[in-house]
Amino acid sequence: MLAEIITIGDELLIGQVIDTNSAWLGQQLSQNGIQVKQITSISDDAKHIVSALDEAKKRADIILITGGLGPTKDDITKNTLKGYFKMEWRTDEEVLQNVFEIFKRFGKETTEINKLQAQVPDKCIALNNKNGTAPGMWFDVDGKIFVSMPGVPYEMKGIMTESVLPMLRKKFGLPTIIHKTILTQGIGESMLAEKIEKWEDALGVDKIKLAYLPSPGIVRLRLSMEGNEKDEMMKVINRKVEEVMPLIKKNIFGYDNDTLEKVVGDLLKKENRTLSTAESCTGGLVAHMLTSVPGSSEYFSGSIVSYSYDVKTIELNVSKKMLEQFGAVSEETVKQMALGVRERLKTDYSIAISGIAGPDGGTLDKPVGTVWIAVAKEGFVFAKRFQFGDNRERNILRSSISALAMLRKMMIGELDD
Amino acid sequence: MLAEIITIGDELLIGQVIDTNSAWLGQQLSQNGIQVKQITSISDDAKHIVSALDEAKKRADIILITGGLGPTKDDITKNTLKGYFKMEWRTDEEVLQNVFEIFKRFGKETTEINKLQAQVPDKCIALNNKNGTAPGMWFDVDGKIFVSMPGVPYEMKGIMTESVLPMLRKKFGLPTIIHKTILTQGIGESMLAEKIEKWEDALGVDKIKLAYLPSPGIVRLRLSMEGNEKDEMMKVINRKVEEVMPLIKKNIFGYDNDTLEKVVGDLLKKENRTLSTAESCTGGLVAHMLTSVPGSSEYFSGSIVSYSYDVKTIELNVSKKMLEQFGAVSEETVKQMALGVRERLKTDYSIAISGIAGPDGGTLDKPVGTVWIAVAKEGFVFAKRFQFGDNRERNILRSSISALAMLRKMMIGELDD
Repeated sequence: MLAEIITIGDELLIGQVIDTNSAWLGQQLSQNGIQVKQITSISDDAKHIVSALDEAKKRADIILITGGLGPTKDDITKNTLKGYFKMEWRTDEEVLQNVFEIFKRFGKETTEINKLQAQVPDKCIALNNKNGTAPGMWFDVDGKIFVSMPGVPYEMKGIMTESVLPMLRKKFGLPTIIHKTILTQGIGESMLAEKIEKWEDALGVDKIKLAYLPSPGIVRLRLSMEGNEKDEMMKVINRKVEEVMPLIKKNIFGYDNDTLEKVVGDLLKKENRTLSTAESCTGGLVAHMLTSVPGSSEYFSGSIVSYSYDVKTIELNVSKKMLEQFGAVSEETVKQMALGVRERLKTDYSIAISGIAGPDGGTLDKPVGTVWIAVAKEGFVFAKRFQFGDNRERNILRSSISALAMLRKMMIGELDD
Repeated sequence: MLAEIITIGDELLIGQVIDTNSAWLGQQLSQNGIQVKQITSISDDAKHIVSALDEAKKRADIILITGGLGPTKDDITKNTLKGYFKMEWRTDEEVLQNVFEIFKRFGKETTEINKLQAQVPDKCIALNNKNGTAPGMWFDVDGKIFVSMPGVPYEMKGIMTESVLPMLRKKFGLPTIIHKTILTQGIGESMLAEKIEKWEDALGVDKIKLAYLPSPGIVRLRLSMEGNEKDEMMKVINRKVEEVMPLIKKNIFGYDNDTLEKVVGDLLKKENRTLSTAESCTGGLVAHMLTSVPGSSEYFSGSIVSYSYDVKTIELNVSKKMLEQFGAVSEETVKQMALGVRERLKTDYSIAISGIAGPDGGTLDKPVGTVWIAVAKEGFVFAKRFQFGDNRERNILRSSISALAMLRKMMIGELDD
């Protein structure tokens, strides 16, 4: 089954907006066993839309179109599709009802122009858009499926998830594909591949596919399986996850859409414990990541971002003598920082980070990318040295991720390397 | 002059990687007076590359290709182009020299496979890639220009800026286009448009085009002008910038590639002053933004992220009584926070933020999105209430930007609203 994606909008061609819709659609389609043949971005121009549709239907069975659907002048896509398929207008009652409801929710009158949103080409199926007024449209012509959706990402995603994907599965009798993603931290792609080589080789027996998805500090392992018996497949995949666990137990921190800050937050909530951080080179990023999770005030008390020597000594009780002897980026200092912030902010746990993010500040002994991270709890403190690269932004991000991972390991009693 | 962009790579079609190259290329081309007609993403497949090239050259004069250039199996694009243009191989000495140098820099031997990077189709111009080993390639065939570049963004950008854009300007005798971007904060797009309406209307006289580029908290105004006399045009544009200044003086914080954190940092460096922050709802984001600027340790001392009541009282000297009487999100508390952190961290200036980022915690009086921001200096403290929306992530970002903007206004003596 082949699909193509056509995204419409001058803003894409002049680079004012990055086309994130296509990547999301590509993920969804490939995860459902539909191969994307081509992605095409074109301007808001009827002629160009028609030629793109002509080209796409030669190559693919499914053509997904986003953009160019809006209340007035933006309706170029809808008008072009009506002409392309030689249809008439009709008013869709369900869409009209949705338009009324949305305007009512914002306490506004529905104008005549707004009501035009419910006007669609007569032989299309209108797809309800619960996040906006412009409906999606499904055309089934000569055995090819054309779907048009608004360009606003969350509107498009809603229509896709609730209508288009289920309808495509039904129409083409697509096999069920299930996915399970294992999230790992603290191990590079090649080392990971080496550790799980035998397990990976055996995945073929159950026709399970594996994809490595790396990002700074984190590698995701996505298992995919195709078939008809969802429950049975889920059992097989879960067994495979169990099998790989002992090989990389220390590196796995979650599954699917988990994030490290969410996983750590859930652990803290469950244990009813509190956390504080003392951040030097990460400059507050760990606190920002933790507080990006709604409800984090339940367990996160705060942070002391100590960018200067003075703040380290005044706020974190790091002794001047020690700073002079060992330097700010040292095991001694980072341990003192973790103990200091835990005591000051009266929390159960604490994290401390001190390092050289770059581009300046490196020495022979401690080159750019040298980072010390410590975690502490009642009567216990542990620190470890990391050596990252020479990119400031990545060093700050990788330090923050490593710090959250270290806290998690301490909390689950896995801290030993 | 019409151009098309073809990006090659399976990872784009399955949505593993978002195609940011196309947006950047679209910006560069349109800023140089070249209109982008279509962007096409295709798989690493010779047949598909050939048909995409055939289609593109029907519509455009310039075809830019990225991706599918690499040391071994990835060389599908190079091989396909050689066949497409019926050329032979030649070894480019300059590229070979570059390959040797890059491997030498990393202390590695150049293998035979690496040397293959210098092999290019004989009638193309090889474009040096100072950030990597795969060269760009320029083909001038039947009056159409085809350029192939690696898919790694910073390699592509280097080749584009140093070779492709100057060569395109020369080849097609493109007029010079100059741009100047005015960065504004604290004013929405429509209000901004109203304030500068007359000025905007008069831009046409000098054939200057204006684009509004909004992002959370910031609106950029980009002026563009086409012509031949660069110095003369620069004078005209600068005069227009001078003219608009009095209308929106309070909102302008910089030009072109400035960021608020960089502008504030430069001011602090110039004045030889220090800064600290006390952050509640922003959870460390202001500190993170400030410390993302290299060298920020010169002026940024640190931050106290006070997510709990306790931290506010212990670390920031906010009185419990006041917290109980006025609440954490109040003028009184945020002023105390600003004064408290300035005193504790012994800095010249301070910023404090306290608000309700959401989704929970809102009340009738103080709905989600209510944020108090304060700035302080010797003998002075000022606070203002902001009302943002209901999206947690955007509220945190807009609060942080507004806080940096408020500090800047205090520093330049423009604080009066």
